[in-house]
Amino acid sequence: MEESNNKIEVFAPATVANLSCGFDVLGLCLDSVGDKMIISKKNKKGISISKIKGFDLPLNPLENAASVAAMALLKNIKIDYGFDIQIFKKIKPGSGIGSSAASSAGAVVGINKLLGNPFTKTELIDFAREGERIACGSPIADNVTPAILGGFTLVKSTNPLQVISLPSISELHVVILHPQIEVKTADARAVLPKKILLKDAVTQWANVGSLVSSLYTKDYDLFASSLQDVVVEPYRSKLIPFFKETKKITLQNGALGYGISGSGPSTFTICKGMENATLIKEELHKFFMKTKIPFKIYISKINRKGIKTKMI
Amino acid sequence: MEESNNKIEVFAPATVANLSCGFDVLGLCLDSVGDKMIISKKNKKGISISKIKGFDLPLNPLENAASVAAMALLKNIKIDYGFDIQIFKKIKPGSGIGSSAASSAGAVVGINKLLGNPFTKTELIDFAREGERIACGSPIADNVTPAILGGFTLVKSTNPLQVISLPSISELHVVILHPQIEVKTADARAVLPKKILLKDAVTQWANVGSLVSSLYTKDYDLFASSLQDVVVEPYRSKLIPFFKETKKITLQNGALGYGISGSGPSTFTICKGMENATLIKEELHKFFMKTKIPFKIYISKINRKGIKTKMI
Repeated sequence: MEESNNKIEVFAPATVANLSCGFDVLGLCLDSVGDKMIISKKNKKGISISKIKGFDLPLNPLENAASVAAMALLKNIKIDYGFDIQIFKKIKPGSGIGSSAASSAGAVVGINKLLGNPFTKTELIDFAREGERIACGSPIADNVTPAILGGFTLVKSTNPLQVISLPSISELHVVILHPQIEVKTADARAVLPKKILLKDAVTQWANVGSLVSSLYTKDYDLFASSLQDVVVEPYRSKLIPFFKETKKITLQNGALGYGISGSGPSTFTICKGMENATLIKEELHKFFMKTKIPFKIYISKINRKGIKTKMI
Repeated sequence: MEESNNKIEVFAPATVANLSCGFDVLGLCLDSVGDKMIISKKNKKGISISKIKGFDLPLNPLENAASVAAMALLKNIKIDYGFDIQIFKKIKPGSGIGSSAASSAGAVVGINKLLGNPFTKTELIDFAREGERIACGSPIADNVTPAILGGFTLVKSTNPLQVISLPSISELHVVILHPQIEVKTADARAVLPKKILLKDAVTQWANVGSLVSSLYTKDYDLFASSLQDVVVEPYRSKLIPFFKETKKITLQNGALGYGISGSGPSTFTICKGMENATLIKEELHKFFMKTKIPFKIYISKINRKGIKTKMI
């Protein structure tokens, strides 16, 4: 066991799932928002979590998304040692930008690297979903997929897991507005109807198809007009304070699209260029100050690489 | 008025709408199946139909899809002359491969050419939809779009009309199986539920997204696994004789996908290469001979150009 392969620092990015039209399917990876993790080999078999900073999350390996994902990985390889995980959490749990996904994905990507990369990215996503199962109640893949693949991603199917990377456009910037209220994923699921109108479904899959096409052809107009959600947003937007008002502000100021990030309460604005993103951040800031609801705003580029690692 | 611009011969191709996952949205254009039309300038204003061969369709310009589409075009241009249309119909009405769409699209593309191309392709599709309105009861765009654009197409929205061309893959061949029974579009619509399960809609839009991606990346495996329809096929396949059996035959013999063409009764098989298409045509032929139901089978490449015209 070489010294250099004993310890790794991981940047585990935040992610935006759904992207308006692509509920449960589309996602993208952020660049400037994410957790830090330090993973070390240890002589004892299994997974431990020795430190969590930033937020109050379980140290018990059976209850934390990172360790549960890591254990799913370990089930698929025979080794006589284990790993310890330290988590420096910056993504608030329940914020809607893939907090548990970052932990799950960061753990399996870091460990895979320490093991000499025995697993494919799709296998890693499958392990990371087990972390999502413990955190959200179901093994959803729409945040762990962009966290691991980077850029824009599409979950083609979950059983068996099939995921694809879509092209990105370098000019795109994302503004994340995070009102500091709690929206539980389970509640956000509960407001959705079991059935939807066929005609709305048709609108939605036309939008998914044209959004995917727009990424290949770098057609901003098509990209913008595809970022529509007639299925989920009408229900979930009610859980998010001042959604209508903030949507109007972003679109009036030239945003390409505005929607709910994952199950909220964070929202995302996609903009062309840093200048427009800065303007929209300022306008949202100005508006939200008046609401008296605590909030945070970030600007991020699209992160094309996903999780970043560094041997330490 | 130059002699050379007085008369045009039009090849108006058959088309496959829906393509399994893309109900009301996706379509492709066929190459070897289509109608011939001859359109001539005439001194008298308006549209007339002087001849229809092949099938018994209305000569009354107010009742024929071709002339209704042509009249929609004429409403948008000021000219002091008119056009006469002759239709040599090869695509059987009600076959599910865009018979009325071929007439509608052929008429407007031919007339546009005789006029010196004043209209964009999207405008022509919008006019052609009026022919569909008279033939099918609603101004559907999913057959006239591939007829006019060629290749694979996506109807992004119908109000306002927004359509996009998707890349094609030259190796793809289509086998059309047309059992000679009647399935009325209205009946095929009536069997569909108004509402569908959200989870099925998610499966469907994941498939539309990945199908579009597969055309850009020329990924045959992804293309094949995306050609799934969990929404419409379960209902409409009951209207089509021996659908299950023929689907099994095509997939067991290496087809990339099999589904209902438009609202049926024709089905399409998409194959990689002529050799596989020929094999599948033979196997379907062998099977259908035993059913005692009259049928036709064609093989076609993807037609990337759409309607073809020749001044005569």
